Amino acid sequence: MNFKMIKQTLGYLLMFEAAFLLVPLITAAVYREPAFFAFLITLALSATCGILLVSIGKPKNKLLFARDGFLIVTASWVLISLFGSLPFVFSGAIPNFIDALFETVSGFTTTGASILSEVESLPRSVLMWRSFSHWVGGMGVLVFIIAFLPLSGGQNMHIMKAESPGPSVSKLVPRVKDTAVILYAIYIALTLGEFILLLIDGNNVFDSANLAFASAGTGGFGIKNDSLASFSSTTQIIITVFLVLFSINFNSYYLILKAKFKDAFNTEVRVFLYIVVSATTIIAFNILGSTGAENIGDAFRHSALTVASLISTAGFSTLDFNLWPELSKTILVMIMFIGACAGSTGGGIKVSRIILMFKGMTRELSQLTHPKQIKKITLDTRPVDREVVRSVNAYMICYILVFFTSVFLLSFNGYDFTTNFTAVTATFNNIGPGLSLVGPTQNFGFFSPFSKLVLIFDMLAGRLELFPVIVLFAPSTWKK
Amino acid sequence: MNFKMIKQTLGYLLMFEAAFLLVPLITAAVYREPAFFAFLITLALSATCGILLVSIGKPKNKLLFARDGFLIVTASWVLISLFGSLPFVFSGAIPNFIDALFETVSGFTTTGASILSEVESLPRSVLMWRSFSHWVGGMGVLVFIIAFLPLSGGQNMHIMKAESPGPSVSKLVPRVKDTAVILYAIYIALTLGEFILLLIDGNNVFDSANLAFASAGTGGFGIKNDSLASFSSTTQIIITVFLVLFSINFNSYYLILKAKFKDAFNTEVRVFLYIVVSATTIIAFNILGSTGAENIGDAFRHSALTVASLISTAGFSTLDFNLWPELSKTILVMIMFIGACAGSTGGGIKVSRIILMFKGMTRELSQLTHPKQIKKITLDTRPVDREVVRSVNAYMICYILVFFTSVFLLSFNGYDFTTNFTAVTATFNNIGPGLSLVGPTQNFGFFSPFSKLVLIFDMLAGRLELFPVIVLFAPSTWKK
Repeated sequence: MNFKMIKQTLGYLLMFEAAFLLVPLITAAVYREPAFFAFLITLALSATCGILLVSIGKPKNKLLFARDGFLIVTASWVLISLFGSLPFVFSGAIPNFIDALFETVSGFTTTGASILSEVESLPRSVLMWRSFSHWVGGMGVLVFIIAFLPLSGGQNMHIMKAESPGPSVSKLVPRVKDTAVILYAIYIALTLGEFILLLIDGNNVFDSANLAFASAGTGGFGIKNDSLASFSSTTQIIITVFLVLFSINFNSYYLILKAKFKDAFNTEVRVFLYIVVSATTIIAFNILGSTGAENIGDAFRHSALTVASLISTAGFSTLDFNLWPELSKTILVMIMFIGACAGSTGGGIKVSRIILMFKGMTRELSQLTHPKQIKKITLDTRPVDREVVRSVNAYMICYILVFFTSVFLLSFNGYDFTTNFTAVTATFNNIGPGLSLVGPTQNFGFFSPFSKLVLIFDMLAGRLELFPVIVLFAPSTWKK
Repeated sequence: MNFKMIKQTLGYLLMFEAAFLLVPLITAAVYREPAFFAFLITLALSATCGILLVSIGKPKNKLLFARDGFLIVTASWVLISLFGSLPFVFSGAIPNFIDALFETVSGFTTTGASILSEVESLPRSVLMWRSFSHWVGGMGVLVFIIAFLPLSGGQNMHIMKAESPGPSVSKLVPRVKDTAVILYAIYIALTLGEFILLLIDGNNVFDSANLAFASAGTGGFGIKNDSLASFSSTTQIIITVFLVLFSINFNSYYLILKAKFKDAFNTEVRVFLYIVVSATTIIAFNILGSTGAENIGDAFRHSALTVASLISTAGFSTLDFNLWPELSKTILVMIMFIGACAGSTGGGIKVSRIILMFKGMTRELSQLTHPKQIKKITLDTRPVDREVVRSVNAYMICYILVFFTSVFLLSFNGYDFTTNFTAVTATFNNIGPGLSLVGPTQNFGFFSPFSKLVLIFDMLAGRLELFPVIVLFAPSTWKK
């Protein structure tokens, strides 16, 4: 392990976090909130620690290996969450540290699960910090650093790989740094587009900014107690459309800009859109006539928002879907697992992994009856690397293992199976709300501190897609 | 496809089924029950159809390929279940055909899930047929045919492979036929041993035979409404021990007879026993003090029986474990998935698959940090074939797919998530009872006919370990 390089990167991270804290700090200044000082102290602390880490013991050897990349990414996310939770504690908004950490990890990992029973009494700067943490975590904080900082040479691909969602990362352009810049440019442009549309619909600057940040990161923290229910239908539709847009691989937007439309609408995007449309349609007819969905238009609007919100793993809601028929709830649980496209800001298992799983299974089945046949798995007419297929399988096993261990650890609390199962589903896939006791009108505050730590681990492991976190537990990682 | 050979094998199968029907027929004669005629008609029908299938159009080409093996096995299980359900309908015990089929498939697949709300009023011959179907299905009806009938040459390995549980089948001796004979000899000896011990404990011949058949096949159909609760503690302990014995790979018994003790207690057996002991201990302390488990002895007895009953996928019960604390219930759900050892009569995913999954995952994780390293997966110091590892991964993906599709199809009924989830868990893993509405004191009668068909499919797919059933849906299987 190149600990000096790791230390230096973490230093830069804290300096960037100090910069990020300017957003809630300015909000606090505008609204003259006492939380200003909570943000100021955290900013100062973060900047000081950052400068110290960067300046003391500069690395001579700038070489980074895969395992350094994993450690950098996991350590960064833990560190940014630890510092990020301080304003909640200092401002008194969430005095308990474990609760504050849960809320911050939930923010950066774009989960959106909250321990708060109501949010409207919180200072606006604190609400802004929650929403903004979604935006920072959505595209990845280290991708941000790569984009704006001249780090070491070509080795930051290891970091990019470890932080980006999906089974494999493709560089849009030869240089990793340029790829990161392009991704962030698209991200900023889309967020700005949503912000402007929300303003046009009559929302104020504060609301529009919060909604745009939270939906761009597919996070799900709301600024109202009823999530999105009290916003206008048009606002709800705007958010629905942008949730779908932020769930699509950002490479597609680059390809559209390059006028490569066929490459942009690849198999993953098409399958994703197909799932969104069919789930929306089934649920709309299933809930038709129930409270809030009396006519077909309303049923479709609520269904579309809920589907977009859960498959993008944002977790916003307009109606309490815990009260919907069992068929709709089962479909919602299923799309929670599927998740968004690779290379988007969404979570979950990712559509491309599901596709590769199916293709691997089909290949195996045809191999059973035609043992001598040699068949390669292809995706969009290109052969898929055997390593990628194997790694997707290992990912799924790892996923199941962490999933059931978490449900087991939660069961010590004694809550019902649906609560435990969907609480893990909602945090591990970075969604937010689940069913039963963790349904959309509920919160995670009632869990024991131990359970909260388990769920914090799940959120981090889910956002970083398991491997960067899990390899740190493998003894072989630490061998010379 | 060699349809003539397939037809002939199915003919032999029906002739064997006719022979199996002698057991309930004799029972009906002894107790002078009118159900005698129901069995007699079915026996005659089965024998006639069998003779017709065998004698008309004899095959010239005796060659069987892998896909013929899959079709033979799946078709056999469907056919034996269709004929096996007739006595239930004819005797009036279960007048509805779908219900009768559910009960029969549940019997042969050793699931033990029942649509009956009470069994004590049933004719004894019908109870005997239910228990005996467990015994026939436990070791596999085609393994039985292979053992006792001179089928074609070496090709019946394809049939043996398709019917035997576990990721790979090892021949104990060079000839497949001899292997099948040895397996059935061990099976009969163990069943007889249990029968005699149950007689010694004071149970009558009828009860002892039923209990021995049902636990040998790790089935779970009871002859009392309260499953095993009203039997003596000693009987419960005898059954617990034998459920564990029938969950161990039968190869181990052969190796013990050959005095190869180290090979007999291989990794799978050791991991299996470790899981049984630790789950029993945790649950015993967790339920201590609750109804029926007031003292530590009772807590251990009930816990051991329930763990043995669920990990062996039999599904007997002495207490209503649906009322136990959430921790115990979660452990029970987890061991339902794990299941027994490969090559036993038990169901579930199988301990060896779980071990291979873990090993595959660990290899992948160490590959991530040491990309140039080449590491082979070993089990009991022997390297595992790469095909086996890949096939285990494909199995898991297939398992997840069928599992969630089934939960989805069940959700049309509108029952709660725990009911649907554990109903599929209980049938797909061939256990019997689940939690909530399908808990140990409940039954499956309330499901719609469509849901029952889904669960019938799950029981068959689970018993035949997916591939033989699923490949029949792949177009490539039917290509020349």
